[in-house]
Amino acid sequence: MMLSRRTVNLGILATAGLAVGPTLAAASDLKAIELPPPWKDGGKPLAQAVWARRSIREYVDKPVPIEVLSNLLWSACGVNRPATGDRTIPSWRHTLESEIFVAAADGVWSYDGKAHRLTQILTDDVRAETGMQDFVAAAPLNLIYVADGRRLEGASADEKRLWAYTDSGFIGQNVYLFCASEGLATVFRASLDRSRLAKTLQLPETKFITCLQTVGYPKG
Amino acid sequence: MMLSRRTVNLGILATAGLAVGPTLAAASDLKAIELPPPWKDGGKPLAQAVWARRSIREYVDKPVPIEVLSNLLWSACGVNRPATGDRTIPSWRHTLESEIFVAAADGVWSYDGKAHRLTQILTDDVRAETGMQDFVAAAPLNLIYVADGRRLEGASADEKRLWAYTDSGFIGQNVYLFCASEGLATVFRASLDRSRLAKTLQLPETKFITCLQTVGYPKG
Repeated sequence: MMLSRRTVNLGILATAGLAVGPTLAAASDLKAIELPPPWKDGGKPLAQAVWARRSIREYVDKPVPIEVLSNLLWSACGVNRPATGDRTIPSWRHTLESEIFVAAADGVWSYDGKAHRLTQILTDDVRAETGMQDFVAAAPLNLIYVADGRRLEGASADEKRLWAYTDSGFIGQNVYLFCASEGLATVFRASLDRSRLAKTLQLPETKFITCLQTVGYPKG
Repeated sequence: MMLSRRTVNLGILATAGLAVGPTLAAASDLKAIELPPPWKDGGKPLAQAVWARRSIREYVDKPVPIEVLSNLLWSACGVNRPATGDRTIPSWRHTLESEIFVAAADGVWSYDGKAHRLTQILTDDVRAETGMQDFVAAAPLNLIYVADGRRLEGASADEKRLWAYTDSGFIGQNVYLFCASEGLATVFRASLDRSRLAKTLQLPETKFITCLQTVGYPKG
């Protein structure tokens, strides 16, 4: 990943201070990336993208350029109405409880849709922890979908999980269509050790992992 | 809705014979619609569709033409790889457990993605039963997302619901992007009396309703 500048990252550092588990980078080693502005136009006509949508589980070792990552994350769950903060996915009662973490070779990054920025939360490569299948360790990106249960106020514990998983489906389909349009490979995944990965990411108790999605370039 | 031909519909009639609840049409009154082939091309470039995606809750009383309905249902959950039966949405272990019912003024229709056909299962207008908000009764289409738990073999009862709701998210986002591309209005909905509507639809015990989505033309 290209790094455009470093930032002091108070929220992240506060969490990092309490860390157990994977080796944590010193605070000064945690970086932030201001993503280039997302695409305003482009991509295949919708019908073509839908025809091309499929799951692909074989990836080549080729990094995803920052411009592509910018468009990918914005399409997944970015802000498409800046005045209200509304997103490319719907949100039950505007709770905006979903967020994306990106597990890459150079660590784990948190996507802030409002600022269209990535903030590093770990410098370790934890891709192998994001699933049961071999390809997850080597594919360039594993998107981790996380929900903040606290934001889903008014929903029962059961509903919180259902709404959060539904939201991961909204995000997932955006990622599928983006990849189908742009020649990337992707697969949505539900099998993982959620509690282990939540520990690695040092998620607070109110946040939980729903599903994941691997993204890269297809083999052959 | 345009009706292209009538068919004898054994599966539907078997269910109808056991019906309680809404007035059932005589078997011969249940119709089927062979949908025109779905679009092969067309729609906005993906980036534009994602920018335009939003929820709209005010509809005008204007029917959705059959060609648009065909493209809508195919995009939502149709077959995009006829050789394998694979669909425009992913499916956990290829279980293909999701299906769509369409509640319209002229009854409720079941969408068969493989045949790209609609089969009428009720002649009653039950749109008002599909949600808590006033607009649902008058909007031209309410898509009802249903999952067959039997197909999700190997998943726990808890997982069955989570995977099914996730799948409703995949479908829902396809519908959002289709509507954003084609100038339709839509809103994904989770609030409804599921057991009442399941009874009205005479769903077998193994099938359950996840969410719904209203589709029509926007006011103004």
